[in-house]
Amino acid sequence: MAKTNPGRFFEDYAVGQVLHHPVPRTVTNGERALYHALYPSRHALYSSDEFARSCGLPQSPVDDLAAFHVVFGKTVPDVSLNAVANLGYAEGRWLGPVHPGDTLRSESEVIGLKQNSNGKTGVVWVRTKGLNQREEVVIEYVRWVMVRKSNLDAPAPETVIPELNKALSAQDLVVPKGLDFSNYNFLQAGETHRWGDYAIGETIDHVAGVTVEEAEHMLATRLWQNTAKVHFDLTFRPEGRLIYGGHVISMARALSYNGLANAQMIVGLNGGAHANPCFAGQTIKAWSEVLDKADTDVPGVGAIRLRLVANNGGAPFELKSEDGRYLPQVLLDLDVWALMPK
Amino acid sequence: MAKTNPGRFFEDYAVGQVLHHPVPRTVTNGERALYHALYPSRHALYSSDEFARSCGLPQSPVDDLAAFHVVFGKTVPDVSLNAVANLGYAEGRWLGPVHPGDTLRSESEVIGLKQNSNGKTGVVWVRTKGLNQREEVVIEYVRWVMVRKSNLDAPAPETVIPELNKALSAQDLVVPKGLDFSNYNFLQAGETHRWGDYAIGETIDHVAGVTVEEAEHMLATRLWQNTAKVHFDLTFRPEGRLIYGGHVISMARALSYNGLANAQMIVGLNGGAHANPCFAGQTIKAWSEVLDKADTDVPGVGAIRLRLVANNGGAPFELKSEDGRYLPQVLLDLDVWALMPK
Amino acid sequence: MAKTNPGRFFEDYAVGQVLHHPVPRTVTNGERALYHALYPSRHALYSSDEFARSCGLPQSPVDDLAAFHVVFGKTVPDVSLNAVANLGYAEGRWLGPVHPGDTLRSESEVIGLKQNSNGKTGVVWVRTKGLNQREEVVIEYVRWVMVRKSNLDAPAPETVIPELNKALSAQDLVVPKGLDFSNYNFLQAGETHRWGDYAIGETIDHVAGVTVEEAEHMLATRLWQNTAKVHFDLTFRPEGRLIYGGHVISMARALSYNGLANAQMIVGLNGGAHANPCFAGQTIKAWSEVLDKADTDVPGVGAIRLRLVANNGGAPFELKSEDGRYLPQVLLDLDVWALMPK
Repeated sequence: MAKTNPGRFFEDYAVGQVLHHPVPRTVTNGERALYHALYPSRHALYSSDEFARSCGLPQSPVDDLAAFHVVFGKTVPDVSLNAVANLGYAEGRWLGPVHPGDTLRSESEVIGLKQNSNGKTGVVWVRTKGLNQREEVVIEYVRWVMVRKSNLDAPAPETVIPELNKALSAQDLVVPKGLDFSNYNFLQAGETHRWGDYAIGETIDHVAGVTVEEAEHMLATRLWQNTAKVHFDLTFRPEGRLIYGGHVISMARALSYNGLANAQMIVGLNGGAHANPCFAGQTIKAWSEVLDKADTDVPGVGAIRLRLVANNGGAPFELKSEDGRYLPQVLLDLDVWALMPK
Repeated sequence: MAKTNPGRFFEDYAVGQVLHHPVPRTVTNGERALYHALYPSRHALYSSDEFARSCGLPQSPVDDLAAFHVVFGKTVPDVSLNAVANLGYAEGRWLGPVHPGDTLRSESEVIGLKQNSNGKTGVVWVRTKGLNQREEVVIEYVRWVMVRKSNLDAPAPETVIPELNKALSAQDLVVPKGLDFSNYNFLQAGETHRWGDYAIGETIDHVAGVTVEEAEHMLATRLWQNTAKVHFDLTFRPEGRLIYGGHVISMARALSYNGLANAQMIVGLNGGAHANPCFAGQTIKAWSEVLDKADTDVPGVGAIRLRLVANNGGAPFELKSEDGRYLPQVLLDLDVWALMPK
Repeated sequence: MAKTNPGRFFEDYAVGQVLHHPVPRTVTNGERALYHALYPSRHALYSSDEFARSCGLPQSPVDDLAAFHVVFGKTVPDVSLNAVANLGYAEGRWLGPVHPGDTLRSESEVIGLKQNSNGKTGVVWVRTKGLNQREEVVIEYVRWVMVRKSNLDAPAPETVIPELNKALSAQDLVVPKGLDFSNYNFLQAGETHRWGDYAIGETIDHVAGVTVEEAEHMLATRLWQNTAKVHFDLTFRPEGRLIYGGHVISMARALSYNGLANAQMIVGLNGGAHANPCFAGQTIKAWSEVLDKADTDVPGVGAIRLRLVANNGGAPFELKSEDGRYLPQVLLDLDVWALMPK
């Protein structure tokens, strides 16, 4: 019997199935430092334990996206090893901070299935949870991917398409326990713009760019224990190793510090598209648009909904062509909720 | 007087000599995270403190090979700075886990010498020990290298060739104190195959490959404070920086997770050959063969002897040509004992 | 209103101004491990907690240059984002060790201004302090840079050129509290040469070289949260990303272990010039010259003043041409005080 894991194919999924993803992972200050070496992150809450304490947290949490990548990475062998395409995200929420020393594991429930008309592939929807060592859910999100069939004769499952919110409402967001921005130090955070200074519809060019290198995206992707071979094996993909979409997300988020330094914590993921593939040698730049704003009942804390776009170079603020397709330089179109001092 | 260390030449060694290698090194969660960024490691015992505790250990140890690399790296300035070739390993044992915060140092005893007939080089055998801050030996192994003579007129030493075991017997292996696999969580570990499921002679293709990059092998090799200039200086070796053999070992071991996820701890090193040099741009793949199995008297713990082969791409399961020489794609042929749940 | 930080231009500075640089940063064992992966560092005091304790310190501090880079990195957005050239350093002192867990922030006072005769640029002198979470100054230094004017019509400020010492005197150096080299373990440190063995005027070739890679200098520069775009964006600088001068400093310092293994701690920075730009693909080598020696009143501790030169390959010990200009292979000419066992 073959002892290696071939991954799951479309016919291996059933609605209601729960996948317990191996391998649990303890995250430490080592991951924290590596995250800062890999991305130009400067958000003060994740940079300084002292700043985090001044905001009511016990110390700097592991970066919200680093925690996401750890949880996501665990799902790859079970969900996307044979995926043709990563189609979307929805209803993502950060339910509590992850601290150095915490151990994360992931589990996913299959919540939707739809075989494609070609009979060779299908779409699988999963709702994934990341849990810590106290069995607290710290992250949850829905993801859907197109997966190949291995046995083309396998019957098509009943089509189930889950109803997903286009965006989380502000009431769905969870503000970390203890967070309090009423004594927020704007000077240390690096920008004076507060929640009230941002207008819906406003766009921000984050200016700087980073030319990405093979060694860097592989270091990152391995750190999250993401095993998808397209990221690592040039013989498998001679046109170039495909960079993990999460690397682009983290790079764009870090670049967004310049103009959104006070959008401290990402707490909601409304959706996201990896519009075009990213390869080493490309230069990632980012821009944002304010999509919405909402108040919270936590002292000093407002919520801001942001479109975060990563480009392969080029000018900011252009997204789609007239036919509604993403422009070729667009790498990422992400829709998140973040917390900001009022 | 020159203040720099030229390294030792063949005539500088004498049987019975003990070399106290500088510089002691404290290993932390930083090294742990870097190890996971550099290699696609997923063995649960090293990934999760919780999993390690469920196996009777106080926390995840530093990866067994990372500990080996630290101990090995210290010997380079005294043993292999002027080495022409790294000829072999034998009788390697891991005698106790290394935990974050421990400080390692190395010492080696010269146990064999044989001048080559050309009069220009000779073979040096050393038995190296890695000790922690409590003076406990945590690793020991024999290594032999071919070293240049500096003074060709120096007399040949008496030839002493140590008797070395072709392989450790299972009784020689040390199971870490407290280790207990009787409540082993196969679901979290990622595979269901237990010790009893592996047959002597069985071969396993670990499938995935990693195309290696200059920056990565240099980060790794520096982290182990290995100073051999062939790994770092392109002007010294214009045909390409030679990748530290230990980088190939760790890459192959990490890839072997797929099919050997439960071969949790390496506790014995019977032998090993760096069959062909490895350079950046090559794609490392791995396959294994079960060479032997043995029981232990520790609850739930079996020992499995594995050949671990790293290839530069190509198909698995081919090792040598008819004349007994390694095929050109073979980078590594390693022979280890690992501990596995029964 | 634009929300992004355009950086300061020459006309934005005034003598006496104090710049409170965002973002505070907690440094941990993660940064420590990364420093050892990025540079071939072997100085025992920073490698081993046990060795550091044997020298009277509570544990290994964060490498003195890593602490410098963190403090320096914070100043970049406010001081050198629009700098044309980094002109010099003076009066740099390390006033106390930085330990894992400490949080650093930086502030700078403008101490000098001089508009250039072209009317388009000017020189800005700042005295920068790095402070820990207890508001103790751990590092201070003067730096001057040439900065562009944005508004060419802005009036020239009154010229103020600060008086700076060519070199710190030994009495200005601060020996870390508790440091005691009277039981110094030369065997573990790796070399037997003590303070008394070095003669003023002596030169040392550190022999080894490292060919630098894009991924590595970017990892380092991001880790210090240095945001200067010339280091990251190839589209901004198609002739090659300029490597952060601090990367060259750290590489040269680490290479200097071979011959100066006992020059354990850098405590003074008398001056320094980044003589020529450094790009990926260059091979950094280093040599040193003993410029001065001084005793201290601390048991077993002597001070040694060193010129540390980094070359892009080539032979050691050549610095300037007959017309007084740096030779094209010289990357760095640094002048430091270090502490050494007597």
